[in-house]
Amino acid sequence: MITTDICIIGAGPVGLFAVFEAGLLKLRCHVVDAIAQPGGQLSEIYPKKPIYDIPGFPEVLAGDLVNNLMKQIEPFKPTFTLGERVEHLHKQEDKSFIVETVAGTKIACKVVVIAAGLGSFEPRKPALENLEQFEGKGVNYMVIDPEKFRGKRVVIAGGGDSALDWSIFLTGVASELTLVHRGSSFRGAPESAEKVVTLTEEGQMRLLLKSNVTALNGNGVLQKVTVESEDKSSTEIEADYFIPLFGLVPKLGPIENWGLEVEKGAIVVNTFDYSTNVPGVFAIGDINTYPGKLKLILCGFHEAALMAQSAYSIINPDKKYVLKYTTVNGVPTL
Amino acid sequence: MITTDICIIGAGPVGLFAVFEAGLLKLRCHVVDAIAQPGGQLSEIYPKKPIYDIPGFPEVLAGDLVNNLMKQIEPFKPTFTLGERVEHLHKQEDKSFIVETVAGTKIACKVVVIAAGLGSFEPRKPALENLEQFEGKGVNYMVIDPEKFRGKRVVIAGGGDSALDWSIFLTGVASELTLVHRGSSFRGAPESAEKVVTLTEEGQMRLLLKSNVTALNGNGVLQKVTVESEDKSSTEIEADYFIPLFGLVPKLGPIENWGLEVEKGAIVVNTFDYSTNVPGVFAIGDINTYPGKLKLILCGFHEAALMAQSAYSIINPDKKYVLKYTTVNGVPTL
Ligand SMILES: Cc1cc2nc3c(=O)[nH]c(=O)nc-3n(C[C@H](O)[C@H](O)[C@H](O)COP(=O)(O)OP(=O)(O)OC[C@H]3O[C@@H](n4cnc5c(N)ncnc54)[C@H](O)[C@@H]3O)c2cc1C
Ligand SMILES: Cc1cc2nc3c(=O)[nH]c(=O)nc-3n(C[C@H](O)[C@H](O)[C@H](O)COP(=O)(O)OP(=O)(O)OC[C@H]3O[C@@H](n4cnc5c(N)ncnc54)[C@H](O)[C@@H]3O)c2cc1C
Repeated sequence: MITTDICIIGAGPVGLFAVFEAGLLKLRCHVVDAIAQPGGQLSEIYPKKPIYDIPGFPEVLAGDLVNNLMKQIEPFKPTFTLGERVEHLHKQEDKSFIVETVAGTKIACKVVVIAAGLGSFEPRKPALENLEQFEGKGVNYMVIDPEKFRGKRVVIAGGGDSALDWSIFLTGVASELTLVHRGSSFRGAPESAEKVVTLTEEGQMRLLLKSNVTALNGNGVLQKVTVESEDKSSTEIEADYFIPLFGLVPKLGPIENWGLEVEKGAIVVNTFDYSTNVPGVFAIGDINTYPGKLKLILCGFHEAALMAQSAYSIINPDKKYVLKYTTVNGVPTL
Repeated sequence: MITTDICIIGAGPVGLFAVFEAGLLKLRCHVVDAIAQPGGQLSEIYPKKPIYDIPGFPEVLAGDLVNNLMKQIEPFKPTFTLGERVEHLHKQEDKSFIVETVAGTKIACKVVVIAAGLGSFEPRKPALENLEQFEGKGVNYMVIDPEKFRGKRVVIAGGGDSALDWSIFLTGVASELTLVHRGSSFRGAPESAEKVVTLTEEGQMRLLLKSNVTALNGNGVLQKVTVESEDKSSTEIEADYFIPLFGLVPKLGPIENWGLEVEKGAIVVNTFDYSTNVPGVFAIGDINTYPGKLKLILCGFHEAALMAQSAYSIINPDKKYVLKYTTVNGVPTL
């Protein structure tokens, strides 16, 4: 069992800076992340891209910002459990918590700070009666290895960039490719939309606009897809694979079962201290929502600072904290 | 007349970063400051001192942070009026504003952002009947040129660092020095308090504890100071100068007369967009107050970001702004 003052779920920029703000108040932190490295979206999605709206940095590479934050929190010696997703929050009788990961690691703490960003991404699924029955048996929500579709009959559905891009890419791979789209124009990049129209005119793929996939059929594995057009006429298409690409929706995942008030996938907090409806549990960064919320890194930094004040009161109920400037008092070490 | 989208009052770090957040939304800013250089407290009070709690900077000199912010806002070509205190806010019929400085400079704008920090500092005055009558005629609230007191009889009142430090310093300058303090122990540094006791024991100065100055007398200029001790006995002290050093209180100054809701010298805002009770007027940084408020630079940065969203809606009532990441969209130029 790991014992600490604050357990921070999520090692994104906001979770990392929370270590700093807590440290200024001499509170110790343990940080858990499902992915293997600290930095959240910055390390996972865009480490080599410049960010322009971090105050005081006309330009900073996302990866460098993460490195700077890691350096800034060094004096407070945070401990980390990386590569383990948090699954459970056990409330104790004495109002403290035990946080448990999927691998069974347990962290005993007095305060829990959820800095879980967008949570985990999951595909948006179409409302089709027997969809689940064909998952892994012809229905795929993402293209991981395109070779899997070589020489196969593929139906893609969607109107955004990934539907367009994968249609273009798989046209040269699949034996037959059909793109089904509800609307008559695309949300994706105009160049990609034009390319799809050209490929269709050349007879290399089939494009069904103002249409929806309404049924899946097959004997154990997918064999046919029913497409209904706006005028209610329907077509049956022979298909080995159906790939609905309707975008990804962030899901809170296990956090959803912790009794927290949730609104559109984000945890509702108040702006006094970014506390949730569960006493002792705070939510900061992209994971939270409140009137005016902007999903920006710099906003998460502010939220971390206000959170730390209340965390201090919970952990030190008898002491009164008076704000001290770092310039005047320096940075304590833990 | 200067014409702009947003007039920002105060060129401290928060006012400067507000230019950036407004600029991302293609809003133009004009910044006014009473002092001659940008940077607010950072440039005026501690330019050469390191700050440790700016996210992403393990350590940054206050002056360097200001330089970085100036560089960061360059693409948005803000204009400045420095060295002029803002005095008036004229509301126009069309809901726009004209901001006017003490020098008569006028700025026409659609939105006003008050980032005036602590406002202007003014000395806390003792409650003495004829105090004002002797201001500049023996009563001084600060020591600007110590030589003025050479060979003079000086009475200082107060129990903090400046009362202690100036008593020590002026002991070698004045012909007679008396320190009057309400309490029996000092709020200032223990070393300074000890030094005052030693000087008193050596007969170099006089120390009256548990005492208050209760009256001032003189014929045109100050001549005598009445000191009453806790036991109600009173002493008359011949004095050329009386220097009450009861600290500085920040005053909103002219801003106080603009119809804004004010609480303990700070402007009350809501945390949705840091707007005040006057539509079109926002307050960000040290100048504002709301539940949980911390007077930290990083908090002002967050406030600037949320303010800019609402400023955009006021300035572009027909457009809808969709948050764009700088990493994805870069920084526009104005
Ligand atoms: C391409 C792109 C460009 C961007 N550009 C900008 C920009 O210019 N400026 C800006 O301010 N913002 C930008 N953003 C947004 C910015 O990246 C986010 O606001 C920021 O990452 C939020 O930080 P966070 O710490 O709240 O969450 P995240 O960075 O999302 O980190 C959350 C962490 O929590 C972990 N986690 C989630 N659930 C669990 C669990 N159950 N157990 C364990 N760990 C968990 C995740 O693995 C993740 O590492 C951009 C985003 C993207 C995708
Ligand atoms: C010694 C010291 C150390 C500090 N250390 C830290 C630290 O480590 N971390 C931290 O986060 N904060 C620290 N602070 C606090 C920090 O400096 C303030 O939070 C910050 O300066 C607030 O920025 P601001 O832009 O809101 O206001 P300010 O920096 O106060 O700037 C406001 C500006 O408005 C101008 N102004 C006011 N009224 C008018 C008017 N009527 N017309 C025109 N101009 C006007 C003023 O001249 C001033 O330049 C410290 C402060 C001090 C004094």
